[in-house]
Amino acid sequence: MALIEGEFGLIDKYFAPLSKSAPGAVNLTDDVAFFEVSPGLVPVVSVDTLVGGVHFFPQDPPGNLAKKLIRVSLSDLAASGARPLGYFLSLSMPADTDESWVAEFARGLCEDQKEFGIALFGGDTTVTSGPLSLSLTAVGEAASDKIVRRSGAKPGQRVFVTGTIGDSALGLTLIKKMGMREANSHFPDLVQRYLVPNPRVKLAPILGNRAAASIDISDGLVGDLAHICKASGVSISIDFSMLPLSTSAKRVIEANPTNKGILLAGGDDYEILLCCSPENSRELISKAAEQGVVVTEIGRVTNQGDRFVRVTEGACVVEIEDTSWRHF
Amino acid sequence: MALIEGEFGLIDKYFAPLSKSAPGAVNLTDDVAFFEVSPGLVPVVSVDTLVGGVHFFPQDPPGNLAKKLIRVSLSDLAASGARPLGYFLSLSMPADTDESWVAEFARGLCEDQKEFGIALFGGDTTVTSGPLSLSLTAVGEAASDKIVRRSGAKPGQRVFVTGTIGDSALGLTLIKKMGMREANSHFPDLVQRYLVPNPRVKLAPILGNRAAASIDISDGLVGDLAHICKASGVSISIDFSMLPLSTSAKRVIEANPTNKGILLAGGDDYEILLCCSPENSRELISKAAEQGVVVTEIGRVTNQGDRFVRVTEGACVVEIEDTSWRHF
Repeated sequence: MALIEGEFGLIDKYFAPLSKSAPGAVNLTDDVAFFEVSPGLVPVVSVDTLVGGVHFFPQDPPGNLAKKLIRVSLSDLAASGARPLGYFLSLSMPADTDESWVAEFARGLCEDQKEFGIALFGGDTTVTSGPLSLSLTAVGEAASDKIVRRSGAKPGQRVFVTGTIGDSALGLTLIKKMGMREANSHFPDLVQRYLVPNPRVKLAPILGNRAAASIDISDGLVGDLAHICKASGVSISIDFSMLPLSTSAKRVIEANPTNKGILLAGGDDYEILLCCSPENSRELISKAAEQGVVVTEIGRVTNQGDRFVRVTEGACVVEIEDTSWRHF
Repeated sequence: MALIEGEFGLIDKYFAPLSKSAPGAVNLTDDVAFFEVSPGLVPVVSVDTLVGGVHFFPQDPPGNLAKKLIRVSLSDLAASGARPLGYFLSLSMPADTDESWVAEFARGLCEDQKEFGIALFGGDTTVTSGPLSLSLTAVGEAASDKIVRRSGAKPGQRVFVTGTIGDSALGLTLIKKMGMREANSHFPDLVQRYLVPNPRVKLAPILGNRAAASIDISDGLVGDLAHICKASGVSISIDFSMLPLSTSAKRVIEANPTNKGILLAGGDDYEILLCCSPENSRELISKAAEQGVVVTEIGRVTNQGDRFVRVTEGACVVEIEDTSWRHF
C-alpha cells in the first residue's frame, strides 16, 4: 500500500500548496479546517462523487478529470445562485496509482482554482481495492432567501437554458462510436465539452434576484425539466425547434437525425435550466449577455397535466422514451 | 445497475427523513443545501472516508458502520473544540447491495443523529464496481480563535488523554486472532470499542478555552503524539506506566505482554490527546469530570531533541518500532 504509506508526503507535496490562500486549512496539517462566510450569507454546499468506470473513463487525462470534478459541483452552486468559495476533496486511489497521476491531477485542480477563485479547504486520501473514486464537497455562499431552488416554478413563467444543449452527450456518443482520437479530430469542441464542462459561475449573482426556479442540466434536459416539474408541482412544455444548438451539434444531427434524442435525454451539459417571470426575463437575459452568456427561451411553465414534461416540434408532440441520462 | 435506477427512491425512502430537522436540506430534493452557523462562529469541517476491506470488514453490521463513520468525524470536531451541526454523505455502493443493507445503515445514522443532535444536510449516492465506500463531511461550529490545533504545544505543558487507551486496537487484534464471535464472547467491551467508538463530543466546549493543542487518537497514541510534535515543533515525553487502561485491556496485556506495543501503536481510540498549561489543567480535568470524562496525565511537553516522542517505563526507555497504526 504505497499510497497510504506515502499519504502525508503526497499531501505535503501536491495538495497543501492548493490550500495556501485558505488560512482555515492550516496547510492541511490538521484533521479539521474552518472557512469564513461573508456576513449575512450562509454556506451553500454541493457534494458530487465520480467513480472510475461509472462516471469517467479510467484513462481520462487526470488534469481534465480534476477540472470535471470541480466544475460539476460549481455548476450546482451556480444554478442555486451561490458564489463559490472552496472545496473539500476525498480521493480514494488504487494502490498502484502513479505519483505522476497525482501530480497531473493536482495541476488540474490548481488551474481551476485560479479560473474560479477558489481554494482547497481540506479532505482525505485513502487507498481502495476498487476503481479510482473522487468525492468533492464544494462550498459557496449566498443569502439564504436568495437561493434558487427547483421548486419555485409557477404557471405562466418562461423556461430558458444557457449556452447550447447536447454538445457533451454528442461528444460522448462520438467517443464511444469512433474512439477518443478519431472523435477529437472531427469534433474537438464536442469532445471538449464532454471532458471539461464550463459551469456558469458568472451567472450566479444574476439568478439570485431574478430566476424563480433553476437546476443545472446534468441528468439531461428532459430529466432535469422533470425534476423542476416534480419539485414545483407544475408541467412544462418546450419546443424542440427552439433548442439552442452549436454548429457542430447541428452537423452531427443532420448527418444522423436519430441522434436528435440525445439532445433531450443526453446529460452532462452543465448549462443552467431556469424558469423566470416574463417581467424579470428581459433583465436576466441582458445581464447574462453582459457576462457573455446567451440565454435562450425554450418553452413555458403550464399547469396542464400532472407534473409532466411535454416536448413539441412545430405542430407535433415528440415521444420521449427515456427521461434521464444513464451513465455508460 | 439497480441502485442507480433506484437512486431517487432510496433517497426519498431512507435518507430524506434524516434531513427533516435541517430546513436548508429541503428534504434532499435539490443539488445544493445550505446550513446556518451561529453568529460570530465559523463552519468547522472534517472529511473522513472509509473503504471496505481497508477501514472496515465488508461483513461489519451496517448500523455499526454508519455510527463509526459519523463518530470518526465527530471525534475530529470534538478535538478541535467545535460543536457538531450536521453532515454531508457520499455513498458509493456495489450494484448488488441489498435494500436491507441501506435500511440498516440509515437506521444507524438516525440513532446517532439523535445521540449527537445532528442532521443529514445532503450528499450523493453512486454505484461502484469496487468495494463499498463511504465519505462523510462533518460540519460543526466554533469561534475561529478558539479552534484547538495540533500546533499549540509548548515546553512545560502537560500531556493528557481522555478515557482509556488501546481498547479498540486490542479488540481488533482479538477479532483477527479468534474471529468476531469468539472475541465478542470473551471481550465484548474491547470489540465494541473497535466497532463503535465513542467520540468525546461533550468535551469540545471545555477544550476551546483551556487546551493549547489537541488531536483525536486515530492513528495510534505515538503516531498522534508525533503529529503534535511535528506541528508544534516540540518533543514530548510520556510514561508508559501512566497510561489509563481498562480492566479488559489489563487482562489481555497480562495474558500476553507482547500486546503492550498495541497500546502505543494501535489506533482507533478516538480519545482526545491534549496538551495544557499547568494553570489550566486542573480546571480542564474538573470540567471534564462533570461530563463524566476522566482525563489522565501521561507526560510532558519538552524541548529536548527534534520533534521527538520519547516513551519511558519507570527508568527504561521504550523502543518504538512503528509510530503509526497501519490499516489491516
